[in-house]
Amino acid sequence: MITLIFLLTFTTTTDEASPVPAHQIFQYIDEHQHEYVQRLREWVAIESDSSDLLKRQDVIKMMHLAEERIKQLGGTVELAELGVQELHNGSTVRLPPVILAGLEKDPEKPTVCFYGHLDVQPATLEDGWSTEPYNLTEINGSLYGRGTSDDKGQILAVLNAVEALQQYELPVNVKFLLEGMEEVGSTGLFKLVEERNSTFFSDVNYIVVTDSSWVSNKPSITYGTRGNSYFFIEIECAKKDLHSGAFGGIIPEATSDLIFLLSTLVDSSGHILIPGIYDAVAPLMEKEKKLYEKIELDFEKKKAIFGIRNFTYNTKEEFLMRKSRYPSLSIHGIQGAFSAAGTKTVIPARVIGKFSIRLVPNMEPSVVIKQVTDHLNKKFAERNSPNSIGITCMFASKPWLSDTDEPLFLAGRKAIEKVFHTEADLTRIGGTIPIVSHFQEVTGKSIMLLGIGGPDDAPHGQNEKINRYNFIEGTKLYAAFLQELASF
Amino acid sequence: MITLIFLLTFTTTTDEASPVPAHQIFQYIDEHQHEYVQRLREWVAIESDSSDLLKRQDVIKMMHLAEERIKQLGGTVELAELGVQELHNGSTVRLPPVILAGLEKDPEKPTVCFYGHLDVQPATLEDGWSTEPYNLTEINGSLYGRGTSDDKGQILAVLNAVEALQQYELPVNVKFLLEGMEEVGSTGLFKLVEERNSTFFSDVNYIVVTDSSWVSNKPSITYGTRGNSYFFIEIECAKKDLHSGAFGGIIPEATSDLIFLLSTLVDSSGHILIPGIYDAVAPLMEKEKKLYEKIELDFEKKKAIFGIRNFTYNTKEEFLMRKSRYPSLSIHGIQGAFSAAGTKTVIPARVIGKFSIRLVPNMEPSVVIKQVTDHLNKKFAERNSPNSIGITCMFASKPWLSDTDEPLFLAGRKAIEKVFHTEADLTRIGGTIPIVSHFQEVTGKSIMLLGIGGPDDAPHGQNEKINRYNFIEGTKLYAAFLQELASF
Repeated sequence: MITLIFLLTFTTTTDEASPVPAHQIFQYIDEHQHEYVQRLREWVAIESDSSDLLKRQDVIKMMHLAEERIKQLGGTVELAELGVQELHNGSTVRLPPVILAGLEKDPEKPTVCFYGHLDVQPATLEDGWSTEPYNLTEINGSLYGRGTSDDKGQILAVLNAVEALQQYELPVNVKFLLEGMEEVGSTGLFKLVEERNSTFFSDVNYIVVTDSSWVSNKPSITYGTRGNSYFFIEIECAKKDLHSGAFGGIIPEATSDLIFLLSTLVDSSGHILIPGIYDAVAPLMEKEKKLYEKIELDFEKKKAIFGIRNFTYNTKEEFLMRKSRYPSLSIHGIQGAFSAAGTKTVIPARVIGKFSIRLVPNMEPSVVIKQVTDHLNKKFAERNSPNSIGITCMFASKPWLSDTDEPLFLAGRKAIEKVFHTEADLTRIGGTIPIVSHFQEVTGKSIMLLGIGGPDDAPHGQNEKINRYNFIEGTKLYAAFLQELASF
Repeated sequence: MITLIFLLTFTTTTDEASPVPAHQIFQYIDEHQHEYVQRLREWVAIESDSSDLLKRQDVIKMMHLAEERIKQLGGTVELAELGVQELHNGSTVRLPPVILAGLEKDPEKPTVCFYGHLDVQPATLEDGWSTEPYNLTEINGSLYGRGTSDDKGQILAVLNAVEALQQYELPVNVKFLLEGMEEVGSTGLFKLVEERNSTFFSDVNYIVVTDSSWVSNKPSITYGTRGNSYFFIEIECAKKDLHSGAFGGIIPEATSDLIFLLSTLVDSSGHILIPGIYDAVAPLMEKEKKLYEKIELDFEKKKAIFGIRNFTYNTKEEFLMRKSRYPSLSIHGIQGAFSAAGTKTVIPARVIGKFSIRLVPNMEPSVVIKQVTDHLNKKFAERNSPNSIGITCMFASKPWLSDTDEPLFLAGRKAIEKVFHTEADLTRIGGTIPIVSHFQEVTGKSIMLLGIGGPDDAPHGQNEKINRYNFIEGTKLYAAFLQELASF
């Protein structure tokens, strides 16, 4: 009920804060949609696949194209160099620059910085695409092409929204931080954020990440992500692989030790067996609980899409909480053992078991690392194996959580109501976006994920698309959001 | 003591059976060793790598070279065609023919058939060889080159022994079954053995496999091998790999189910946990136990060669029995999970766990398959997972065991005493030679493994070699053996 009262309050204040009626902006956007799709076509045509070194120049070209677009809107753009990427063979290759841009600089207005990326995942016809991945193709209202949803289309929607607002007045100062290495781990960006914290970020009030999708056909806003901690357990029983005929039965096998250790991590219901791991998990509050009740979820459809036989939890609330607000442990695989097709009678000499634990507030990576290491060392000591063991945390990223009552979220929810005539799904995602918790830690700003991708856009898959509806109504959403934000 | 009495008996009978004094034969062999090494050089020069389709013609060329050698000794040779090998792409390639040869055909004499192979494992300088692998190079009394020990050198030693005996009289009828596909699983040979059982094998009394090495610097005779049964456990939780951020915590993961099942197979001491698996294992007899006591074994050297930290058993007898006369279970790896270097946050959709159980007398593969399947199905049912499971035995070969009091063994032991002035190690090997149990099952003949390879010849490794000592004294051993065999 409290939420509803808030919303009613905004309905009355919004029109005061925004002198330009929203419907005029929306009409402008509708009238220019052909132009927007055309721009998206041009952006999609650039094969800015950051994972392919041979396409590095395309990524850089893409950064320049976006620079040009922002300049056409009257913005100032700095192309911040990130230096070089070191390759395995010792050679280096230039990293694509990061766009640091600003539009409008009115000290009276709040400043929002949009983060997004212009690089894409690999895509070829041979992967099973039905259309040329870099040739935007519209079929039944869907715009197919690599990057349409992830993330070129979403950034372009913000830029188009800015352009539409500029026909009247840009109600807030808008900044952009656009990178070209997101799909391969945002190489170099973390350091840049630290370096520019006291300059580029100094006048930023809000950070909005555009790189996200809705969980259903209903628009959603994301207020939290899980963190992650990735572990290697390395066991060695010999210096060379052994023949299971000659050595089977007389050597404590590394794979057997590893299987034992991995079997002590999680039970069949997904409950993590590492002592103390749940101690720091933030308790579920009544307010948060209510948010899960509102989210729409079609279990059967989700099962069908992924060919999943059954989920561990069958109530919507439990399902959503387990995938986003509680930790989980997944065993990814074993390196060094026999993993090819066929049969091989090998006793692997050195195996590395890989698993990761998704972290949630208020789990501290350093504490989790100690809990995992202590647990595994204890179990291994009990086993009394002569083999060597090494436990390494390969990386750890903190979870991120915002307060859904912050102005960013209130403005986002209001904008969604205005454009889509429905209440926003307020969601936490189970995945990890390391740059988000980095933004939070370094800048301390209020952060929100406001994306316009649909639930079935297949961002990393074949036949990636964005619906024309999402692209155009999403542009309206960003415009309405900027208008709403001006009222705080 | 019984053994000793037997041996004394042979000492007196042998010279009666062999009218030609052994020392004359040995002298002939010593005088012709340069020629023997030269022949080995010619054989090694042919890159008869059966795993490389581009070298198939070399394998066939090798078969013809051996055919020529046997014909020069006055033998008759049939090159039995095995048909074609089907490749993954649907095309076919001709299999190398099998040599079925015979020397001498005296119905008064016993007939021994030697089995061996003329194909080799791959070898290139880039693998880390110190010498050209197909250019026989002698360094400090060792003849380096691919196939010197496995198995060209051993076959040639038999042929050279026959030639030496022919200077006087070949005391037994000798046959040869030589193949060119051993290193890739003896493709086609199993069927041929069945087809020729009532013809080629009808007059064969004994089968001697030359493809084996000594366990120490003492000559050894092998009287048993373990069998093997190779299992796949396939678990599927979804139709496509899932992201551990989006699905971690809400899906019963296939890898987790598999790790659990694999963890129920064997304990840290190597004891197999599958109910009933030890029921059929033949009890240890006093006679057999005594054989282990005589075998020399240097634990520290073995550990050092393979970089093994510790063995599970520290007494020689227990060690030898565990590696050859008791079953063992090895977990080889997982197919379908993440096995590359680095980190990947995947929940694999479908994983195949691979393990095998070495079988010993009197374990029946069909019983073992049932025990394994029942055990895994029971454990999986207890886990109550919604995922699909498939348990498949990919292949099963029976163990092979001979009676060391059979004439073959008595003759072999006597020959070793004569040439090396030491008692033979009578050993069982932990590995599996499927063709041996196939010979036993199909032909019902008495079988023995009499090899001349040294314990450190590295048959499948870099710098494969045979010592000149082993090659020449081994030739004498085969000659003496044929002389001894004539007395039965």
